[in-house]
Amino acid sequence: MVAVLKPGTTNEQVENLTVWLEGRGLKVHISKGEFQTILGLIGDTSQIDTELLEGLEMIESVKRVTEPFKSANRKFHPDDSIIDLGGLKIGGPHFQLIAGPCSVESPEQILAIAQSVHESGASILRGGAFKPRTSPYDFQGLRMDGIEMLLEAKKKTGMPIITEIMNANHLPMFENVDIIQVGARNMQNFELLKELGMIRKPVMLKRGLANTMQELLMSAEYIMSGGNHNVILCERGIRTFETYTRNTLDLSAVPMLRELSHLPVIVDPSHASGHARLVKPMSLAAAAAGANGIMIEVHNDPVNALCDGAQSLTPEQFREVAKKVRRIREALAE
Amino acid sequence: MVAVLKPGTTNEQVENLTVWLEGRGLKVHISKGEFQTILGLIGDTSQIDTELLEGLEMIESVKRVTEPFKSANRKFHPDDSIIDLGGLKIGGPHFQLIAGPCSVESPEQILAIAQSVHESGASILRGGAFKPRTSPYDFQGLRMDGIEMLLEAKKKTGMPIITEIMNANHLPMFENVDIIQVGARNMQNFELLKELGMIRKPVMLKRGLANTMQELLMSAEYIMSGGNHNVILCERGIRTFETYTRNTLDLSAVPMLRELSHLPVIVDPSHASGHARLVKPMSLAAAAAGANGIMIEVHNDPVNALCDGAQSLTPEQFREVAKKVRRIREALAE
Amino acid sequence: MVAVLKPGTTNEQVENLTVWLEGRGLKVHISKGEFQTILGLIGDTSQIDTELLEGLEMIESVKRVTEPFKSANRKFHPDDSIIDLGGLKIGGPHFQLIAGPCSVESPEQILAIAQSVHESGASILRGGAFKPRTSPYDFQGLRMDGIEMLLEAKKKTGMPIITEIMNANHLPMFENVDIIQVGARNMQNFELLKELGMIRKPVMLKRGLANTMQELLMSAEYIMSGGNHNVILCERGIRTFETYTRNTLDLSAVPMLRELSHLPVIVDPSHASGHARLVKPMSLAAAAAGANGIMIEVHNDPVNALCDGAQSLTPEQFREVAKKVRRIREALAE
Amino acid sequence: MVAVLKPGTTNEQVENLTVWLEGRGLKVHISKGEFQTILGLIGDTSQIDTELLEGLEMIESVKRVTEPFKSANRKFHPDDSIIDLGGLKIGGPHFQLIAGPCSVESPEQILAIAQSVHESGASILRGGAFKPRTSPYDFQGLRMDGIEMLLEAKKKTGMPIITEIMNANHLPMFENVDIIQVGARNMQNFELLKELGMIRKPVMLKRGLANTMQELLMSAEYIMSGGNHNVILCERGIRTFETYTRNTLDLSAVPMLRELSHLPVIVDPSHASGHARLVKPMSLAAAAAGANGIMIEVHNDPVNALCDGAQSLTPEQFREVAKKVRRIREALAE
Repeated sequence: MVAVLKPGTTNEQVENLTVWLEGRGLKVHISKGEFQTILGLIGDTSQIDTELLEGLEMIESVKRVTEPFKSANRKFHPDDSIIDLGGLKIGGPHFQLIAGPCSVESPEQILAIAQSVHESGASILRGGAFKPRTSPYDFQGLRMDGIEMLLEAKKKTGMPIITEIMNANHLPMFENVDIIQVGARNMQNFELLKELGMIRKPVMLKRGLANTMQELLMSAEYIMSGGNHNVILCERGIRTFETYTRNTLDLSAVPMLRELSHLPVIVDPSHASGHARLVKPMSLAAAAAGANGIMIEVHNDPVNALCDGAQSLTPEQFREVAKKVRRIREALAE
Repeated sequence: MVAVLKPGTTNEQVENLTVWLEGRGLKVHISKGEFQTILGLIGDTSQIDTELLEGLEMIESVKRVTEPFKSANRKFHPDDSIIDLGGLKIGGPHFQLIAGPCSVESPEQILAIAQSVHESGASILRGGAFKPRTSPYDFQGLRMDGIEMLLEAKKKTGMPIITEIMNANHLPMFENVDIIQVGARNMQNFELLKELGMIRKPVMLKRGLANTMQELLMSAEYIMSGGNHNVILCERGIRTFETYTRNTLDLSAVPMLRELSHLPVIVDPSHASGHARLVKPMSLAAAAAGANGIMIEVHNDPVNALCDGAQSLTPEQFREVAKKVRRIREALAE
Repeated sequence: MVAVLKPGTTNEQVENLTVWLEGRGLKVHISKGEFQTILGLIGDTSQIDTELLEGLEMIESVKRVTEPFKSANRKFHPDDSIIDLGGLKIGGPHFQLIAGPCSVESPEQILAIAQSVHESGASILRGGAFKPRTSPYDFQGLRMDGIEMLLEAKKKTGMPIITEIMNANHLPMFENVDIIQVGARNMQNFELLKELGMIRKPVMLKRGLANTMQELLMSAEYIMSGGNHNVILCERGIRTFETYTRNTLDLSAVPMLRELSHLPVIVDPSHASGHARLVKPMSLAAAAAGANGIMIEVHNDPVNALCDGAQSLTPEQFREVAKKVRRIREALAE
Repeated sequence: MVAVLKPGTTNEQVENLTVWLEGRGLKVHISKGEFQTILGLIGDTSQIDTELLEGLEMIESVKRVTEPFKSANRKFHPDDSIIDLGGLKIGGPHFQLIAGPCSVESPEQILAIAQSVHESGASILRGGAFKPRTSPYDFQGLRMDGIEMLLEAKKKTGMPIITEIMNANHLPMFENVDIIQVGARNMQNFELLKELGMIRKPVMLKRGLANTMQELLMSAEYIMSGGNHNVILCERGIRTFETYTRNTLDLSAVPMLRELSHLPVIVDPSHASGHARLVKPMSLAAAAAGANGIMIEVHNDPVNALCDGAQSLTPEQFREVAKKVRRIREALAE
């Protein structure tokens, strides 16, 4: 951490600050220039509140030079984290296709889709039971009924399931869910993250619409600092000025997050683009960029889907995407 | 609502869609052009899910021409909403100064600040007891102890209090709080909003860091559709590419929100700028732009504040700002 | 184009507007609702100024439902445009690797890089002679000397060259340049675009840092409306809130622009990421997303490069990227 | 400037870099920590290219702690710059109202508006002769004819005039123009800025749609480093995700730019909001925030204006705004 002092700071002020910082276990190196004095703070600065320091009258600016996240940081955990779902592995060299409908609608619908995507190569079944919607007047999901339909499809196909949580009070309903998803709008719902830190079930954390990778990793840190290290990161598109696509999929987040962190990184191209016809090229691009998996919306009747139909693939389209994704992975493995 | 059809849509498809839409109580006007056919949907379109419509194969794009919010919409409630806190009024021609520390730290601190800002003209006391922080390692607030200190200051000064909620399970602790604040990061925590719709206490809803005014109003709609119409909107700065200020205060949101909605609009210049020295000019600007009130952080010892010290005014600075704000309001009232 | 009228608009006003619009060759369909009247304007609306219409007092809002670009629009030119550089083809099924240093520094440097990247599979040589820099104190390029060095390298290797123009007055210096590049900061330098519309040399137009695809296509339209149809689009990253990468490469722009327009789309992963180690994964992703080519910075001595060294590959790294890109294209062609 | 070294950097590498930096006149202070070594570079770092330094393999990151702009920097020029237009002063304690139509349309139009706004308190006349338009099919301005009409209005009213330049080749036409405006889209047209650095006429530089204040000041630096110190900064709204307003006026830029720089700061609320009804509150807010002047679009027939009619005030509305702005300035001066 580097602190730049305001011109006119007295030696006594600098000394007082130094004593205070050293009391927090940091070493302080002072660089005095004609116009500017810079303090270099060496040690574990993650417990120093940047804004508190900036509040001191003698400070012009404070800049972190090390990342404020620890548990998620690859520097302290050089090896890839690998999450084990009863044999099925997420992270490192493993690659998983997650597929299923935006919303669970009926037992028949979810089972039909599950069987179809399983045959095409998907290994994990997705399906929304609780749906975050901008409008209170839009469809909000089948809730517990939806989870039960997913569990039934899991029993029949053997696929582990992932579904979104919106309220920590709902956790008992997620007992048999394999991966709990935290949606983009809840990425900084710190109270929910803390609760998820107290369980040991894998959590897939989606990047917020206007959040940086560092903020995503700090939210992962909330879960991990509670003791739950089974965190999966998910890039699902960020808000930009572009209007032809619903969001802008930030594929550079894949190699960047994998460099910064040891956690697995999944890409969700369906929500990012908002158009089914962009899902295929973006899935291929995500595989080429090195994602640990891709999560794709598939619907057996997209035009009548209760939500997000516009971005869902048909099972046939999904089979084609899955095949091309495999080819890309083989080509890069050679 | 306007739906543009894809070229090649058959008459039969158009007819089927028309029947379906009419079944939902809408009138459908068809404009056929050489290259394009446009459907104009007239009636209450707020219960139509835009994304569902876009999912239909025959649809190229759908555009709303009326706002999807109803309870918050000035068109249906032309008069300003006025919230009454035991005689103290928020909204319409009334103007309130809300002041207090970022975080409640001790009974002495909060009482001293409360008395000081009350003398300078503040009518409502703010103070954080639950603090949303990006890092799990930063100070998280005194929680129930903080609320008790606020209530003690309220008893001694007579000022109503406002403090932030982060978890609907905490609602019992807010029983004697006068206004419940929902922070920017929870603006789309729909589960929390729904719970706040079931009480009747005033809620101040802060605009999210990258959210539009329409999304803010849709979140207000979540609370209002539950029956709680005591909603106050708060502009607190949005995320932009600028780095000299922490956020960019969007003052055009003041006249724009007041035009779109009948709800009161408060401005928080402290969080937006992140610098105490910008709070004064931005407070004056907010008053000039027509805000229904301003919420300002004040600390009796800003350089040692546990959080957000950088953006807090001293009680003396607050007195000066309050005086100038009054002058501006008088000048505009003439 | 759809125009929504304000409540209270009289029949006479609607009639006057209709006459005016019909005088501009448009057909007007009127949909009257209880709360709202909508006009559907059918015909060639590209010559209607949206803002002018919005200026009329009776108009609440105006929305285009067709794209305002014509020459660049795939709807009117269904086949891919293919640009022929003396046999070397850009667009359609053809794929080109463009490589070279950020700045031309010396005859030896540019020749050595040109020969090396040519061997590795690059078909076009890039190199900056005029450099747009945020600071007037930063290196601004070798100007005409740089162009001459490029021409010398072209003579010796046979590779066509591309280099950036910043001032229409410099056009005579670009006489023997094969493709003229317009940088992101000049994407809306309309005076420059108009001049480039009057020549017939291929122009590669980079998307501005905060511009939408529609704005990029409107800028292409400036060139094309002057008669120069040899336009190549380039996605080079847009500005977002992310700070770990310099810009955010928007790969969804590749399939989206290719759907909207018949023009070739090139991806520049070097400027977008700002880090050499992200260039490889993003190049592979660009190829997988369907780009018509990739432009990569290569430097034989990146650590001493005069500018943008941080994002340049070594010739060895480029060879590896070129090989993997070929593999991806083969895998997808199968 | 602070450079953070990568772990594993050898002492020899550090020594080589130190020698190189000292050769550029900088003092280098080294802070060694267990995990990290930080170099503090003291001296005139404005001529060091940050990106060049970041390109070195041993460097993890580089952060400027001083601003890269010099001529525009208040640190080196503590007093406000005041620009003198034959007695009329811009900057410091002076306040100017600039008013006129978006586009000059006819001699009668510009003269009528000039006389009207002059009576209401405007001191400088604006009017567009060259218009930057996103679409080549939109009205592009009357060019030299427009400038002549402005000059005629200047002769009759005595008001100095300001109008926009888009091409340095047009400079001879601007000989009798009092202030040359550089539009937002040309803020980083460095070739144009360099040309404007070679004259001595005042230049009003508008902030780009997605540019930071530092980038605005670096563009001012381009003009000033050529010798032309008569630069006026203009905040005209930045691009955000908001759609109800065309742009988001960043009024915090007023106090912030005035702190960072000694140059005058003008606010243009007309372009920012895109709605005439927002111009009044935002003008009052700009005055309250401490702007050195406000530039407002006024049209005697807004509904028929050739461009930007939606955001123009009538002369009567302008008179009311001018009166209220004066009241605010008086209230704050007390």
